[in-house]
Amino acid sequence: MTQIEKLLQANKDYARTFKHGKLLMPPARNLAILACMDARLTVEDFLGLQTGDAHIIRNAGGIATNDAIRSLIISHELLGTKEFLVINHTDCGMLTFKDKDLQTKLRDKYNADARKVTFHAFDDLADNVKQQVKRIRTTPFIPEDIPVHGFVYHVENGSLEKIV
Amino acid sequence: MTQIEKLLQANKDYARTFKHGKLLMPPARNLAILACMDARLTVEDFLGLQTGDAHIIRNAGGIATNDAIRSLIISHELLGTKEFLVINHTDCGMLTFKDKDLQTKLRDKYNADARKVTFHAFDDLADNVKQQVKRIRTTPFIPEDIPVHGFVYHVENGSLEKIV
Repeated sequence: MTQIEKLLQANKDYARTFKHGKLLMPPARNLAILACMDARLTVEDFLGLQTGDAHIIRNAGGIATNDAIRSLIISHELLGTKEFLVINHTDCGMLTFKDKDLQTKLRDKYNADARKVTFHAFDDLADNVKQQVKRIRTTPFIPEDIPVHGFVYHVENGSLEKIV
Repeated sequence: MTQIEKLLQANKDYARTFKHGKLLMPPARNLAILACMDARLTVEDFLGLQTGDAHIIRNAGGIATNDAIRSLIISHELLGTKEFLVINHTDCGMLTFKDKDLQTKLRDKYNADARKVTFHAFDDLADNVKQQVKRIRTTPFIPEDIPVHGFVYHVENGSLEKIV
């Protein structure tokens, strides 16, 4: 089977016993989570979230980029979420390179200028979490009374560590 | 219990029986998925993915924004993914508003200029999927031979519909 055939077969099995058809659009627990895209993070599982409970926003690093902020604004303003979590993790790929090195690699490989692509690689995990939380807290279009929590997830043992 | 106490209690239970501590950083099935943040989409579940299998990138709408493209470049270039899926879904919040209306609402509420925030609301679900796939396929820093598939997920019955 190809990848797609395998995924579609799994989806058929899922749909056959589907039980979430009556869920409403707004997240039931009024939560929005911003986390890294890393394959080892199954966010719903390690937070005990059920389908329908929370918006899950994910990108490389769990960075509060303009796009993540866009999603959080929509989440709160249109769909009523009232509490945000930022989750970075140990052994993150973003700790393993520098933006400039990747930009150079891409230029050499694709013969196109990659200097405009900011990759948001970082050196210090806890500090990176703090910076993302700060960025969200200082966004003009998110109310100041929304709690924004910052955590590190440990891929080696599945535990969450509170940072801020 | 507060939200955070409840999430941390669930995480303690998860960590107690944790069995993914030996997973490697690169996704085991070499997949990257771009999907909407919607709470009703538990992406790993409806695709039959295990923890460690795939990068999961999510934002409001499942849009191939610059940030999603950034994540896909990192996913392929540094962590070896070789096949991408874009997944939008029925009853998406992005079908329910216009960027301009939300920008005006934000300006009135926060007394700050929101015209620079593009929200990527859309009218046509299938067409939106096609546009995101096209955007990824035409990005200079993603190889042309990477398959990029586009799907609509049906929140009413859990099934995936191939669009492109």
